[in-house]
Amino acid sequence: MALVVQKYGGTSMGSIERIRNVAQRVAKTFDEGNDVIVVVSAMSGETNKLVALCNEISELPNEREYDVLVSTGEQVSIALLAITLESMGYKAKSYCGFQIPIITDSACAKARIEEIGDQNIRADLKERTIVVVAGFQGIDRKGNITTLGRGGSDTSAVAVAAALKADVCEIYTDVDGIYTTDPRIVPEASKMEKISYDEMLEMASLGSKVLQIRSVEFAKKYGVVVHVRSSFNDNSGTLVTKEDADMETVLVSGISFNKDEAKISVVRVPDKPGIASKLFLPLSEANISVDMIIQNLSHEGFTDVTFTVPKGDFKKALKIVNETAGEMEAGKVISDENISKVSIIGVGMRSHSGIASKMFETLSKEGINIQMISTSEIKVSCVIDAKYTELAIRVLHAAFGLDSKQVAAE
Amino acid sequence: MALVVQKYGGTSMGSIERIRNVAQRVAKTFDEGNDVIVVVSAMSGETNKLVALCNEISELPNEREYDVLVSTGEQVSIALLAITLESMGYKAKSYCGFQIPIITDSACAKARIEEIGDQNIRADLKERTIVVVAGFQGIDRKGNITTLGRGGSDTSAVAVAAALKADVCEIYTDVDGIYTTDPRIVPEASKMEKISYDEMLEMASLGSKVLQIRSVEFAKKYGVVVHVRSSFNDNSGTLVTKEDADMETVLVSGISFNKDEAKISVVRVPDKPGIASKLFLPLSEANISVDMIIQNLSHEGFTDVTFTVPKGDFKKALKIVNETAGEMEAGKVISDENISKVSIIGVGMRSHSGIASKMFETLSKEGINIQMISTSEIKVSCVIDAKYTELAIRVLHAAFGLDSKQVAAE
Repeated sequence: MALVVQKYGGTSMGSIERIRNVAQRVAKTFDEGNDVIVVVSAMSGETNKLVALCNEISELPNEREYDVLVSTGEQVSIALLAITLESMGYKAKSYCGFQIPIITDSACAKARIEEIGDQNIRADLKERTIVVVAGFQGIDRKGNITTLGRGGSDTSAVAVAAALKADVCEIYTDVDGIYTTDPRIVPEASKMEKISYDEMLEMASLGSKVLQIRSVEFAKKYGVVVHVRSSFNDNSGTLVTKEDADMETVLVSGISFNKDEAKISVVRVPDKPGIASKLFLPLSEANISVDMIIQNLSHEGFTDVTFTVPKGDFKKALKIVNETAGEMEAGKVISDENISKVSIIGVGMRSHSGIASKMFETLSKEGINIQMISTSEIKVSCVIDAKYTELAIRVLHAAFGLDSKQVAAE
Repeated sequence: MALVVQKYGGTSMGSIERIRNVAQRVAKTFDEGNDVIVVVSAMSGETNKLVALCNEISELPNEREYDVLVSTGEQVSIALLAITLESMGYKAKSYCGFQIPIITDSACAKARIEEIGDQNIRADLKERTIVVVAGFQGIDRKGNITTLGRGGSDTSAVAVAAALKADVCEIYTDVDGIYTTDPRIVPEASKMEKISYDEMLEMASLGSKVLQIRSVEFAKKYGVVVHVRSSFNDNSGTLVTKEDADMETVLVSGISFNKDEAKISVVRVPDKPGIASKLFLPLSEANISVDMIIQNLSHEGFTDVTFTVPKGDFKKALKIVNETAGEMEAGKVISDENISKVSIIGVGMRSHSGIASKMFETLSKEGINIQMISTSEIKVSCVIDAKYTELAIRVLHAAFGLDSKQVAAE
């Protein structure tokens, strides 16, 4: 008997019929003798509907109240799934974030989990009750409802799996697993059997959209084995787990992209010590995460600084940067929302050279201009004009020999 | 400066535009120097939508989970109203039932308020924050979400007004106040300037649908002055308050009706001591409130028992009664959902005779058969065939001189 955490996303929970399918899958795992905790997202479309309602009122809604609003989507889902399981004759009990409790900090809309109570859930599992947990939401120490940001249900699932020391955390989604790149763009993309936490961190943070980055951080930190698989079939998916020797023989394991960032440049900044902190401190205080940063060489005492922020924070960031630029007596602020970031990822890069230059050459051959570059031990990212995104991915996928890669299990 | 509790129903909260109207009304009261607590219902149609989703899964859903589901409607409302007030520059803070807390018993879907914490709200009011409270919902002592039953937001509002010792509890709705009967049925119906708690209790329990009965019980118990008025204009409405001398000069102050009950008869019950308790105990254990009960004279050791239950509990009640009837070796169980109850109400009845017989005579003249009768000090109710409801109300309204009645304030 194992303790299995299963997480179902919005598409899997998208209708009463689909919720029935989820319930049957949960019941099957339970009937095999396992204890089951199910973590669910809002029904697909529901969160967007709530956000649209909110935007009718205000583009910058009060953040505490925004979380009160959007957390209702998951509450609907847990109730419907528990009702379905109960109607099938199983004992089931739903939990909102505050009932577990999932304690977070107070950073509304992007709260971080600090602590998870396991006593209530353990008592239920002991009585062979199926536990249904609302993903995405928590509560801070003052009793305010918080949410973890888009895709936060993955983090909820992995965090609950870590807190309860589950044997596996199965993330059910509408795809079969993690692919070498988006199969909608490259039909030759293939499913990976396993991927290391670090590679997955790069894939997720760069926009592969299958798993939220923080869930992978959690999984890595607590050694939770994550199994990403489809809720529409019984195929095994992709295991996200510790790095092993096999993984290092591959140069590039996957290609990811991100169209959800925007670029902001501050032109002619007086080049004095402390400008970077002056520029970025107000952004971090506003809880905006800056991704890539480039500061060019200084000319005549002035420099240009360019960086990217999530599109969701773009307006807020631009307002702040304009104020700061004014105070710093910088030239002007220019911005571009039509960019995308394309990245190649692989733990094999650590022991092979020339991979970055092969990427630049491949893009250049197609006439794609590289606007920003950033590298880490296991990835190289380039910011390019958004309109070239698909082309860039296709040529890189072919150049790094991924087109022919086929996983045995398929 | 006063402490004003305002409650807005689903119609008043029915769209973003209407929520803006509510916010403006709240702001006006606040700007006049008052402290304001706003209690809101779900946007009109939302609760029904959630119930419909639930019914797709099960006709008898798990009750704990049902409450988790339907309580989300009010949570959406408090967030949207607080966001609107904040966007207008006011300090506003929303409260779910568990955050206040509104402690209830554990009778899901019809929980009763046991205790209300006032510390959190008082702290906010002291800082001139507008407090926005989710109606309809509470939390039991084990941490389960509960709801108070349809119309429960009125009770939430009056209970919060009682707990915080508010000066007035304004119930905003889509009608101008309490009418002598439903103006859609009798165009000559007129608005009452004031009505006693006891009359209102009879009006509400008999289906006037303006105020939930338990809210009036609360108001009576704690002496909360309730002002029922329209959210669409500035007219003063109807005050629900202590009885006074004026009220007693009127024979009948209003006519109400209820189409939301169904009739169940158990035929040929062996007439032994204890049959009533045997029949009704299982219903009360299932939290079903039985309204009118008639037990006919016994013939040859057998009797017939007829009673009414809310239509919402009809299927559940019928199932229970069928089981009990089997155990009691009764003849059979027959039922009728096509009934309605028409009632005349007035504190003046206490000191005047002949009012019941005038009611029976009026109905009989129109050929309307009376199936059940029940009386109290201040009302007479008759169960009739549902199809005669409107006719009965019209002739009674005229017979008791209400057609001509016109309130000076109008």
